[in-house]
Amino acid sequence: MASREEREAFVTLATNDTYALGCLVLGNSLQQASTTRKIVVLVTTGVSNSMRNQLSRVFDLVQEVNLLDSRDSSNLQLLGRPDLSCTFTKLHCWRLTQFDKAVFLDADTLVLRNVDELFDREELSASPDAGWPDCFNSGVFVYKPSEETYQSLLHFALTQGSFDGGDQGMLNIYFRDWATKDISKHLPFIYNVVSQAFYSYLPAFTQFKNDVKIVHFIGATKPWHHTYNTSSGKVIPLPESGHSEEFLQMWWKIFMDLVQPALDPTLGGLVGEL
Amino acid sequence: MASREEREAFVTLATNDTYALGCLVLGNSLQQASTTRKIVVLVTTGVSNSMRNQLSRVFDLVQEVNLLDSRDSSNLQLLGRPDLSCTFTKLHCWRLTQFDKAVFLDADTLVLRNVDELFDREELSASPDAGWPDCFNSGVFVYKPSEETYQSLLHFALTQGSFDGGDQGMLNIYFRDWATKDISKHLPFIYNVVSQAFYSYLPAFTQFKNDVKIVHFIGATKPWHHTYNTSSGKVIPLPESGHSEEFLQMWWKIFMDLVQPALDPTLGGLVGEL
Ligand SMILES: O=c1ccn([C@@H]2O[C@H](COP(=O)(O)OP(=O)(O)O)[C@@H](O)[C@H]2O)c(=O)[nH]1
Ligand SMILES: O=c1ccn([C@@H]2O[C@H](COP(=O)(O)OP(=O)(O)O)[C@@H](O)[C@H]2O)c(=O)[nH]1
Ligand SMILES: [Mn+2]
Ligand SMILES: [Mn+2]
Repeated sequence: MASREEREAFVTLATNDTYALGCLVLGNSLQQASTTRKIVVLVTTGVSNSMRNQLSRVFDLVQEVNLLDSRDSSNLQLLGRPDLSCTFTKLHCWRLTQFDKAVFLDADTLVLRNVDELFDREELSASPDAGWPDCFNSGVFVYKPSEETYQSLLHFALTQGSFDGGDQGMLNIYFRDWATKDISKHLPFIYNVVSQAFYSYLPAFTQFKNDVKIVHFIGATKPWHHTYNTSSGKVIPLPESGHSEEFLQMWWKIFMDLVQPALDPTLGGLVGEL
Repeated sequence: MASREEREAFVTLATNDTYALGCLVLGNSLQQASTTRKIVVLVTTGVSNSMRNQLSRVFDLVQEVNLLDSRDSSNLQLLGRPDLSCTFTKLHCWRLTQFDKAVFLDADTLVLRNVDELFDREELSASPDAGWPDCFNSGVFVYKPSEETYQSLLHFALTQGSFDGGDQGMLNIYFRDWATKDISKHLPFIYNVVSQAFYSYLPAFTQFKNDVKIVHFIGATKPWHHTYNTSSGKVIPLPESGHSEEFLQMWWKIFMDLVQPALDPTLGGLVGEL
């Protein structure tokens, strides 16, 4: 029988080549942190073959998922909710039933140190969302793959929708006792620190900064939207993104050292200016 | 023996006449919500006699606390930490040992509905801070008055200081297991909704707005800094305070209906423009 390490996985998702660049940085950051678990990326038809080749150099498994032709997608059209299709794509992570347990990580997260201890937690464990902390942030969560749960989530999403139009609003209603029931399902905030936290409560950020394990670049501006000065080796943050420059610099260091050199030149053009 | 209702209290604090106006609105909001518990305000010498008279019309007890001449204060000077004196003033709430249990409320909070169920919680119960949600926000907390705890907190504050220079940073280190130990000590966020929450996660704010029980106007701009148009009966929010206009309007309605009419004309001048 396979060892525990082989039955547990980190899982991320990209629906296009741009987000796939985020996955490449994330995957490398997991390797740098010497994870002993499998790492998996879900891709849709929007990810090019060239990019899939890149992904397969870093990930143990590049799993195609496709909702666009499925009955679910026609249901979404029927319900007039095509906006939920990205939400539904994330739900596919529950179908990876070759694993006993998994940790989903958004493509815009960055792992700063080994976080394999997350696999000791149960479904659904997640960190509080800094905006409304009785909701969990769905950029990092521990879950148990299960076809049954997938079907149940899908049914729920189709009938209830999502209060924020995304997976977070839907998952928070489905796993609605998260805020009140079991403290062990509250991952410490250091497992999902929004890169803007230094702005909302600077003294706490300063106090706990060295404990941060996973950074999450939430919002419309992503790390790859900033520019990078190749001669100085420094990121040039866009004004008003609110991203911590220190964390951005870490993202770009991995990108420049480990991702960019191997990229097809046409793919590099997806990223800011190099 | 006194009834449970008489042995439990809501407690707030003002060190000057401006914050005392906040206490007056808060006290009235508790009365409007038909609390069955006692309501107490701690004041320092910075609060005028005229304002104390106003406070005693609304509060069951106006308790003078004075740190300026105390040994503690000279200790603060000694430690070069005079900035902590306001922090220390809040700690005085633990000395109200005539009560078995108490709920501290910042002077910049507003109670929208009855919250007497808070007295079923144990020390230290508080809501997560939206900025760094593994810290609790110290604007609303349930505690047990105790001279011993007070001395212990004072000693801790003198020796450890506070990572944010205020009571929140100090209390979060003293009660450091809040984030990880007991979910029942996590008050739902609706007991301490920062008035800026609609900005940080609008869909959640919209979804849960009608459940909000206590609003907290954190930050440098307080409700009394905005202006109010007496002919239209509408608050005119300062730009960039980030305060929800709806909540501000509730604060001002209580202020104009119940507080302002009884004020000494010289005190009214403390508030925006009337
Ligand atoms: O066009 C998209 C949008 C999102 N995602 C995936 O869905 C996650 C959640 O979206 P995002 O991180 O942009 O949301 P935020 O964290 O900013 O709320 C991303 O990290 C990706 O893994 C994707 O693949 N393509
Ligand atoms: O000059 C001051 C500052 C603060 N406070 C009291 O301490 C609480 C905490 O300060 P504040 O609410 O201004 O801090 P914030 O919630 O914005 O962090 C106030 O609500 C008051 O009860 C006071 O009486 N006088
Ligand atoms: Mn994200
Ligand atoms: Mn306050």
